[in-house]
Formats: sequence, C-alpha cells, structure tokens
Amino acid sequence: MTAGTGLGFTVAATDGPARVGELVTAHGMIPTPAFMPVGTAGTVKAMKPEEVAATGAAIILANTYHLMLRPGAEQVAALGGLHGFMNWDGPILTDSGGYQVMSLAGLRTIKEDGVTFRSHIDGTEHGLTPERAVGIQELLGSDITMVLDECTPFPVDEKTARDSMELSMRWAARSKSAFTPRPGHGLFGIVQGGVFENLRADSAAALCEIGFDGYAVGGLAVGEGQDEMFRIVAATVPGLPEDRPRYLMGVGKPDDIVGAVARGIDMFDCVLPTRSGRTGQAFTPRGTVNLRNARHADDSRPLDETCACPACRSYSRAYLHHLFKVKEILGSMLLTAHNLSYYQQLTAGLRDAIGNGQLQDFITTFNEDQARGDIPVI
Amino acid sequence: MTAGTGLGFTVAATDGPARVGELVTAHGMIPTPAFMPVGTAGTVKAMKPEEVAATGAAIILANTYHLMLRPGAEQVAALGGLHGFMNWDGPILTDSGGYQVMSLAGLRTIKEDGVTFRSHIDGTEHGLTPERAVGIQELLGSDITMVLDECTPFPVDEKTARDSMELSMRWAARSKSAFTPRPGHGLFGIVQGGVFENLRADSAAALCEIGFDGYAVGGLAVGEGQDEMFRIVAATVPGLPEDRPRYLMGVGKPDDIVGAVARGIDMFDCVLPTRSGRTGQAFTPRGTVNLRNARHADDSRPLDETCACPACRSYSRAYLHHLFKVKEILGSMLLTAHNLSYYQQLTAGLRDAIGNGQLQDFITTFNEDQARGDIPVI
Repeated sequence: MTAGTGLGFTVAATDGPARVGELVTAHGMIPTPAFMPVGTAGTVKAMKPEEVAATGAAIILANTYHLMLRPGAEQVAALGGLHGFMNWDGPILTDSGGYQVMSLAGLRTIKEDGVTFRSHIDGTEHGLTPERAVGIQELLGSDITMVLDECTPFPVDEKTARDSMELSMRWAARSKSAFTPRPGHGLFGIVQGGVFENLRADSAAALCEIGFDGYAVGGLAVGEGQDEMFRIVAATVPGLPEDRPRYLMGVGKPDDIVGAVARGIDMFDCVLPTRSGRTGQAFTPRGTVNLRNARHADDSRPLDETCACPACRSYSRAYLHHLFKVKEILGSMLLTAHNLSYYQQLTAGLRDAIGNGQLQDFITTFNEDQARGDIPVI
Repeated sequence: MTAGTGLGFTVAATDGPARVGELVTAHGMIPTPAFMPVGTAGTVKAMKPEEVAATGAAIILANTYHLMLRPGAEQVAALGGLHGFMNWDGPILTDSGGYQVMSLAGLRTIKEDGVTFRSHIDGTEHGLTPERAVGIQELLGSDITMVLDECTPFPVDEKTARDSMELSMRWAARSKSAFTPRPGHGLFGIVQGGVFENLRADSAAALCEIGFDGYAVGGLAVGEGQDEMFRIVAATVPGLPEDRPRYLMGVGKPDDIVGAVARGIDMFDCVLPTRSGRTGQAFTPRGTVNLRNARHADDSRPLDETCACPACRSYSRAYLHHLFKVKEILGSMLLTAHNLSYYQQLTAGLRDAIGNGQLQDFITTFNEDQARGDIPVI
C-alpha cells in the first residue's frame, strides 16, 4: 500500500489501462470497476437496502452535506452510525460535502480555513473545514472518507484553476492530518485542476506526496463534455499510484463509465440511474428508453428481456408505462431497481471483459448495441 | 350456497354474531374476517405485490373507475387481465365504479339506465350502466364483482333514501342478469338505505330475493359517525344469509373493524392504512403514532416492538422520522408495509379470538391497549 493505510486493494488483472480489482473495507469487499448508487439522505431513493444489494451493488455513497443538515452527524452517531441508521451493512463512501456547498451560489464564502454557508433548507449558517468534514464522516462511520476540496468551476481560466487546485491540496494535507487511521477505513484525496493537464499532473503529484488510500478525480462532468473529460482522465491516471483505487466522481452515463474504465478508472457514482428511474427513463443495453412514451402503452413485452431485475422479470412495458402515466410510486421503485441493476450488470460485464483480456471486444459490442436503439414496436 | 354460484364460503366458528370463515375464489382462499388493501390504479401504492402478500393480505381491492379511465378495461384485458398486468396472483375484488362516479359532484348525471360522467382527469365523457360495470369487471378478471349502485348521499331524508335504494335494487337485478357465472368468481349485491333501518331491511330482502354470492353493506362511513354505523350494521346483518360473506365497504379505522366484526361483518377495505402510511401516521396496538412528530427524532426504538414488519424489524423511530422529514419515498414504502401488517395482524387476532370463543376478551384488551396511547419518550 502507498501509505500503510486501512483499505486493502489488489489488482487482479489489467487490459491496457483498465484494471479489475478488489477493494477491501471494514464492511466488505468491493469488486472493481464498481458503480456506487447514491443514497443522498441516508436512503437510496425508492429502494430498500436489501433491494439495493439485490441489484449487485457492493457499496453505496451518502452525502455529508445533506446528512450534516438533517438529521445531523452527531445525531446519526448517537443512533449507532449511518450503517445501523439506514440498515445498510455494506461499505459506505461519503463525500466531503464540498461539492454541494460549492454549488450554493450566493449562499457560501470560501476562505483559507474552510467554507461557510447557509442551509438551502432553513437558511441557518454552517461551516465546513477540512477537519470538520473528516470529523463528520467519522461520526457517520464511513468506510471511505473523502477530503474536503474546492470544486473548481467550469469554464475557468488557468490562473483561477491553479489557485483553486492549490487550495484543495492544502485542504487535502489538513484532511490527512485530521483523519484517524482505522483498519478497514480509508481516506481518498481528490485531484483537481479543471481541464488543464499540467494542473491535474501537479495535483496528482501533490496528493501522492501526502499519501492516500485512494485517489479521486474531481471537478469533471461539470459541462466540459465527454471528449474533454476522457482527455483529462487519460492525462491524470498515469500520475496516480497503480496499487490504489481511482474514483471518477459524479460520473456518469453508461458510455462515460465504459470509456473511463478503459482509461484506468475503478470507481464511479452518479444520481443518473436513480433520478432517471423516478422520471420514467430506463437504461438498457440498447440505449435509453422513455417509458412515458405512448408507444409502450399496449406492449406486453418486458422492458429488457435480457435483464433479471424485478421490473423486467414480472412486469410488461405497458404496466410500467401505466405506472408513470398515473404517477404511482411503484413506477419509481421498479425503474430505480432496473436502472441500478443495469449499471451493476454493466460494471460486472466490464470486470469479466478485463479479466478475459477482451475489453476492446466488449466496448465494440456495447457501442453497437447502444446504437441499435430500442426494440421496435410490434 | 344461496344462489348456486361460484364462490365457496364456509363458516368455521361463531362467537355471538361474529364469524370465522373461509372464502374460496379462483385465485385462492381468503380467511375471514379479512381486510383488503386498496390497489386503486392496479397497484397498492408504494408496495410491490410480493410485499403486500408478505403483510398477510389474502385479497386486494382494485377500483373500476380508475382502471376504466387509465389504462382502460379493454387494454387490461388485452394484456391478460388485472392479475397478470399488476403481477398479483391472489384474489381481486373490484368495486363497480359507482362510489367514485357518485362523488363527482357536478360532473355526473344519474338516470334509470345508468350514470354518465366526465373524467376528473381530462373531462372526457363516459358512461356506466349496471351491465357495463359488470362487463368491465369481467374484462379486468375480478374474482369478486360488485354490482353498480347509487351511493345514497348523507344526510338525506327518508323519501330520497328510499328512491335511491330502490334504484340500486333495480340495478342489482340487472347486474345479476349481466353477470356470467364462472367457477371461483362471484357477484356481490350491496345493501343501501342510508341510516334508515327499515330501508336497510327492505334492501337486504330485495338482494336476497335476487341471490348473490356475497352481500355488501354500502353507503356507510360517509359522515354518519361510528355509533350510527354500528347501529345500521347491527340492524342489517340479521337480514343477510348466514352462509354468505358480508362486506362492509370502505371501513375503516381499527376500532371500526373490531366493532363491525363483532356485529357479523366478514370483509373490509379502506385506504386508511395505505394513505396514512404515506403521510407518516402509523397504526399500532397502542393507537396511532405520528412519525413526523419531533419526539421521535432521537428515538432508537422500533415503532412497535411487537410487530414483525420490515419497518419495525430493521429501523428506528428516529430513522422513520428522518425519512418523513426529508420526504423520502422509503418512508412511504416502510410505513405502508407497517400499516398493512398491522391491519392483517388485527384481523388475524380477531379470527383467533372468534375461533376460541374469546372475542369479548379480545375487544377488552384491544380497547385498553388503544387507550394507553403511544410509549412514552425516554
């Protein structure tokens, strides 16, 4: 391990820059590449924890910002930590709250010490420093803690991006000092630097110097486009240790994940499968399907006949269409389960392909299937 | 059987007017007294069918009015009927649509032939006759079909109540003629007559003369109060055949059910447990509990330690409170499951008590427990 830290990580196979690995935490092992469903407020929306596990998810993400406001980190700690509180006994990664706070335009002030902000819920004032962000995540009982960083806005000039990245690196060092090493628990640093490859390289080097259990790539998927994102990922990965997991934050669409895995990324999180599941948009091997569309109204076929999720096993497209048409909660429940299952099937397929040295074939087939589009109406 | 019809019903034990029985349909046996969860639009809100079954429910109710508008009875039939459409393979009782249509004040016109109305969704004009209501329920594949009736408004004078009841009786005869007898499927008549015992008796006699597989008491729980409701139930039941199930429509609160069972009712439906489950109100042996109340914020105890439902088995009051506070769908999912479980535990307890000849003891304990109120804050 890079820094004698608490998370085990072994790379079992590689295929070009892509890797298959196993990340070991206090609450279990995560096969990588891994997709982490987002459980913002201590629940993956519209899913019971056992249903999340049934999709194949080995780890979930929870949001420090939301939980520090409601119900509060100390309250969660008093109730036995986030695992017990939400009844999820697998690994949990928590973000630092930085991304949400930085998004509170007009409601937050960033200084060297940290950031102060007003709650979007009731306007009360709160503060986050690197030390407090780590402390909150310890109270929550996170298996994987993220450092507080400033998420550099996009677009931005190089000077601003450098100043922002350098602040994040000073915060990363303070986060490391504040973090209590514990077996099975780890701290991830976050590479920043906008779309500037030299800044990304400097940031990666600064983080490696500090030493972390894993390395995230932050500040992407913020509007730069997939080509730019892939360019930055490809330029950043070589500066990261081979023996530590790499996490591309907030990404993404299925083809974002496939492309990023091919460039050496191991972990992902995104609200897309859960959020889309609540609005009737399904992810399938043949691209996205909008179940609100009237074409499905009389279609007795499953959404995806190759899928073993509850929505595809027991219901027709017509029924799913009906549920969204009449705004029934069961629609959100079933389609969230489907979308999360699809994301897990996708990462499982990537792991198999990398393990067999067939990633390029996998990508070719993936792209062809996606381009075919949904099955025609009969 | 009264009318050589398709539903088997045996009374296994009695305790005063109360009975324990078994109602046999094409999709399975229903132990009575039974509570039927309401699946208005082809889904019990916030529940997967297997979760509904896990609460102990043996039969559900679906609403003809909602399903005839969306997705349409013919569409459901073309998709294999309601059982396959919604993935519920147990018995289904459908109402006739009458109650919802009668509630469309200003949007409906009642004549001898039937009722015409405008959809509350898009204003389109629709009609229901006794024949069409039976036909729709046959298209849906209902195990138990309800006759179309005019739900007499409350309060109303005796003359109006008699005219309304007599129209319902003419419609009941037409419904019987329109119904196709099939093994395991049955048609229930509905006693009307407002709060007038003589009209209720006349209505019951008229229905017995026609002959049905079961007899419902309609037009109650519309504002008359529990005492009046019990008075009418007690006066009506003796006029109904002992060898046929009796169904009190749209009832009710737990103590309504206990009191009606003691007066000879076998079947119930109500939106209360599901609707309350979505707003944070829980039913427990110690009365109702509002989980939105701040008293639960730090309470690590289960909602009801005697309950084996998923909400009580795996979550604290603090977590349930948090879910409602942050408006998470999982709150509705868990509390609906709890409330339906409570209603099933209640009817199971009533069945046991009647079977053991201990109904009065059961009622005494039930009332004492309800009066104790929720467990104190610690």
